[in-house]
Amino acid sequence: MRILLTNDDGIFSEGLKLLADALSEIAEVVVVAPDREQSASGHSLTLNRPLRMKRVREHWYAVDGTPTDCVNLGVQGLLKEKPADLVVSGINFGLNVGGDVTYSGTVSAAFEASMHQLPGIAFSQEVEEGFSFERAARLAHDVVTALIEGQLPSDLLLNVNFPSGTPRGVRWTRLGKRVYKQTVIEKRDPKGRKYYWIAGTPEWEHEVGTDYDALLEGYVSVTPLHLDLTDYRGLEEAGPLRERLEALAVAVGEPR
Amino acid sequence: MRILLTNDDGIFSEGLKLLADALSEIAEVVVVAPDREQSASGHSLTLNRPLRMKRVREHWYAVDGTPTDCVNLGVQGLLKEKPADLVVSGINFGLNVGGDVTYSGTVSAAFEASMHQLPGIAFSQEVEEGFSFERAARLAHDVVTALIEGQLPSDLLLNVNFPSGTPRGVRWTRLGKRVYKQTVIEKRDPKGRKYYWIAGTPEWEHEVGTDYDALLEGYVSVTPLHLDLTDYRGLEEAGPLRERLEALAVAVGEPR
Repeated sequence: MRILLTNDDGIFSEGLKLLADALSEIAEVVVVAPDREQSASGHSLTLNRPLRMKRVREHWYAVDGTPTDCVNLGVQGLLKEKPADLVVSGINFGLNVGGDVTYSGTVSAAFEASMHQLPGIAFSQEVEEGFSFERAARLAHDVVTALIEGQLPSDLLLNVNFPSGTPRGVRWTRLGKRVYKQTVIEKRDPKGRKYYWIAGTPEWEHEVGTDYDALLEGYVSVTPLHLDLTDYRGLEEAGPLRERLEALAVAVGEPR
Repeated sequence: MRILLTNDDGIFSEGLKLLADALSEIAEVVVVAPDREQSASGHSLTLNRPLRMKRVREHWYAVDGTPTDCVNLGVQGLLKEKPADLVVSGINFGLNVGGDVTYSGTVSAAFEASMHQLPGIAFSQEVEEGFSFERAARLAHDVVTALIEGQLPSDLLLNVNFPSGTPRGVRWTRLGKRVYKQTVIEKRDPKGRKYYWIAGTPEWEHEVGTDYDALLEGYVSVTPLHLDLTDYRGLEEAGPLRERLEALAVAVGEPR
């Protein structure tokens, strides 16, 4: 059993170190992680410049790119001859829940596992009072152990979040819905020129069955994800909009 | 009617210029776009450093960030007092289809519109023989005109791709499935040290009803998207895996 481990907080983060230690009890762990923090890097690939991958110590490699880059270099480069059975990402410093998962470098690394037909799992830790990466790493160890007791389907894609306190249990959840918007804060530099910070504290709809709701009640949330963003209901129920767009068909081939 | 326009090829790209001109016939267009190419930047937000937004000319602003940053600065900053009715992204140089949409800065800008409860639409142009940004811009104009004839629901999120040749019509599609993997190419610099390129030519499953299939047959593809990545089938049918994970509940609260 070989696990490719990455994160978005960078190769020197505590969550990564403790998770690597915990998973080493059950698998060979190879770490390929960004050489610096890459939070909110999304599912971003570096295509316009080459990447460096530096061996830090045995089985640990630092990459000057995103978590998605790390999974690529790990799967298609480093481990090409001895494939990984599972890609694990985390443990992230801070939750990755609801609609915000598409921003997350941590969760996007698990997306990238799916793109390579490998099972992927992302772990994130709420960082309010009482949180513990040691506890999260033990729990992550238990979750991965439970996973590999059965078959690991290649399209398995799980997003796991740990609450700050001692968890009351594990819940199988769907993604929650965010109700806040990002805000933009305007400031001025010493020369009087404007600059902008993107900021905002997430708030979530309280809905039974969501990841956010489970965490709020003190449970670990486990959310199965997939990458097909097609809005199938919209596809079926498009109605007038679809008709108007398909009516353009008559015109598009004609000279104007 | 006010349109916020962005892209991921950068503010000086031809596709952006022609789209701005075409959309100006039907709406006030405000361009907030990256100051350089941001391809494959995914749904990435810049949170660790401030952003600059530079006025290039009337209604045109260049940002030293990602397309997602641009939508934030546009919606929450520049247009906060006079909100945009629609966010448009593109016209991208190259297709954005199937599972690859999560990599795309162009499509992610439309995602970001959704995060702000605004309708969003992304346009991309296949760039094989016979392609024309002029034609694409006319078509995009017609598509947006057709959209605004009806109501624009705040959760409208469309991904539109134009084939290289003169289109045979418009098809309402779902996302196709990619069958290729990214590859990693290893090289050595003048000092003999290794570096890596992420590369790979996309290949797609031929399946009736997909965006890729429509484009292959010479049609414009219009794919309705949404951002709920929950795998609802996986959520329902989890079975043994879910049982094993929820069984952990007994252990997690206990001292170890």
